Amino acid sequence: MILCTTEDVESYRSEIKKETADAEVFLGKINSLTEEEKEKIEIIISYGNYDDRLLEKDVKSLPNLRWIQIISSGVDQLPLEYLKRSNILVTTVKGIHRIPISEYVMAMILYFSKKIPEFYERKQQKHWDASIMLHELHGKTIGIWGTGHIGREVAAKSKAFGMKTVGVNRSGNQVEHFDDIYTIEQLQEVVGTFDYICSVLPSNPGTRGIVTSHLIEKMKDDVVFVNVGRGDLIVEEDFIEALKRKKISGAALDVFHREPLEENHPFWELDNVVITPHASAHSEMYARRALQIFYQNFKLFKQQSYTEMINRV
Amino acid sequence: MILCTTEDVESYRSEIKKETADAEVFLGKINSLTEEEKEKIEIIISYGNYDDRLLEKDVKSLPNLRWIQIISSGVDQLPLEYLKRSNILVTTVKGIHRIPISEYVMAMILYFSKKIPEFYERKQQKHWDASIMLHELHGKTIGIWGTGHIGREVAAKSKAFGMKTVGVNRSGNQVEHFDDIYTIEQLQEVVGTFDYICSVLPSNPGTRGIVTSHLIEKMKDDVVFVNVGRGDLIVEEDFIEALKRKKISGAALDVFHREPLEENHPFWELDNVVITPHASAHSEMYARRALQIFYQNFKLFKQQSYTEMINRV
Repeated sequence: MILCTTEDVESYRSEIKKETADAEVFLGKINSLTEEEKEKIEIIISYGNYDDRLLEKDVKSLPNLRWIQIISSGVDQLPLEYLKRSNILVTTVKGIHRIPISEYVMAMILYFSKKIPEFYERKQQKHWDASIMLHELHGKTIGIWGTGHIGREVAAKSKAFGMKTVGVNRSGNQVEHFDDIYTIEQLQEVVGTFDYICSVLPSNPGTRGIVTSHLIEKMKDDVVFVNVGRGDLIVEEDFIEALKRKKISGAALDVFHREPLEENHPFWELDNVVITPHASAHSEMYARRALQIFYQNFKLFKQQSYTEMINRV
Repeated sequence: MILCTTEDVESYRSEIKKETADAEVFLGKINSLTEEEKEKIEIIISYGNYDDRLLEKDVKSLPNLRWIQIISSGVDQLPLEYLKRSNILVTTVKGIHRIPISEYVMAMILYFSKKIPEFYERKQQKHWDASIMLHELHGKTIGIWGTGHIGREVAAKSKAFGMKTVGVNRSGNQVEHFDDIYTIEQLQEVVGTFDYICSVLPSNPGTRGIVTSHLIEKMKDDVVFVNVGRGDLIVEEDFIEALKRKKISGAALDVFHREPLEENHPFWELDNVVITPHASAHSEMYARRALQIFYQNFKLFKQQSYTEMINRV
């Protein structure tokens, strides 16, 4: 039996049944199941994070659970040690965020470059102000922190705009669509060359808190910063200070230390910040693409071809 | 002697002198010149439109004028008949709008698709609303009306986003970066397939007023419309009615019947309209690129290679 812990796939229920040779499909949270139901669950489809987090105590209550298909790409909120110890398979949908998130990143750097916020303000005043100077992406440099599926796609789209693409990753190894690659340790040296910064870095000991006032000081004046990775990349008080004095001219933030962002958080008050609610991957295509991966994995799971399953953690 | 009628090239004055073998360079409007100065003017550098329009009576007052380098691409506001009759050369900077305007178009379709106006509103309310569904450009169809330099570049960038590109032009002949091409006469048949529409059409008897309620009715619901061509393409009352009932979900308008847009114009009041002041080509690179063409033309002019001059009208 398959448990779907998110309503986002609800409209695909009959499709899921069909693609899984008529498996029973439950919709609900683990802690809302009866003991009898809990015994039946072998597979979970879940985001595995935030509102849809799978806690160790809940997962432990499913004695026959064998596989979790996460329909997000990060696994930092899963009880990974317990799952490993219990031989429960975990697969993600890594790769499907590539298209929507890269579109989001381009939307945001164009939003600031083409001064859309300023035109918005002028419109409120019915003020025709032809003196506003727009910036071009063409010829500028984008620093893309993280060179996986998403980073590569941001680089490919940036290339279509005639930008120079500089990647930052762990190894420093060359990656397609990038003109240059540096290691995270070299960030201090190279960060001053970026007109735009886009971070898709995950949360780990090597990335947490690396955006300090010290690093910001080395950035170009007027840099635009887009964060679609993880919120804890940023030391918030340093970042806010830089936004206030326009050292960072604009930021689009989709991820935060705590989500939802608290109502009294200073980010809400800053004019040069776009806040989106961890929504950069939102798309009318999301559930469909995620389930395509699940269906393929389901076939492999049934054939016991576990090592061939897509995006195994 | 060269007359520059716009201050936008002022900072290039010494460069202009250098590139023209030390020609005298005047900055000002024709009607502010003395009779003696008027006699000296052989060449004009001018936008040739709107605030910087060259009226027939002013041009007529320059007895030795031989060449006008327009630093825009449209010549519909020039006294063309008089200039032709008087054998005054006219050249434009057609082609240099390609990069900034195509960036503007992508900025605007992404702005509406990624629901940036809705996130802006939520931010005013400090409201974290994760239910907002974003649209993807990927897999969608853009109808690009006009397949010259700018239209082709919009098509190339749209391709980088995985869009289908459909061009509309006079001949119906195939053009690079377009999947399909139709003639303007076929617009009625094909307009219903466009998720996004971008018009770069010039103003002429074949384009004026073609966006009527009749054509709008055949468009997809929720279409996004970007106009960077000419304002008189649109029958305004029909267009406004469609915006009000969200048949057209969003519009970015850079050109209007009358510019500047009148303060009491209904466009200012519509939430789903972005108004920019004929600014889609504005760029920190504009004057530099325009003058590069002027310098090349100046050499040809001096060699009397008039037929080889770039963008002769």
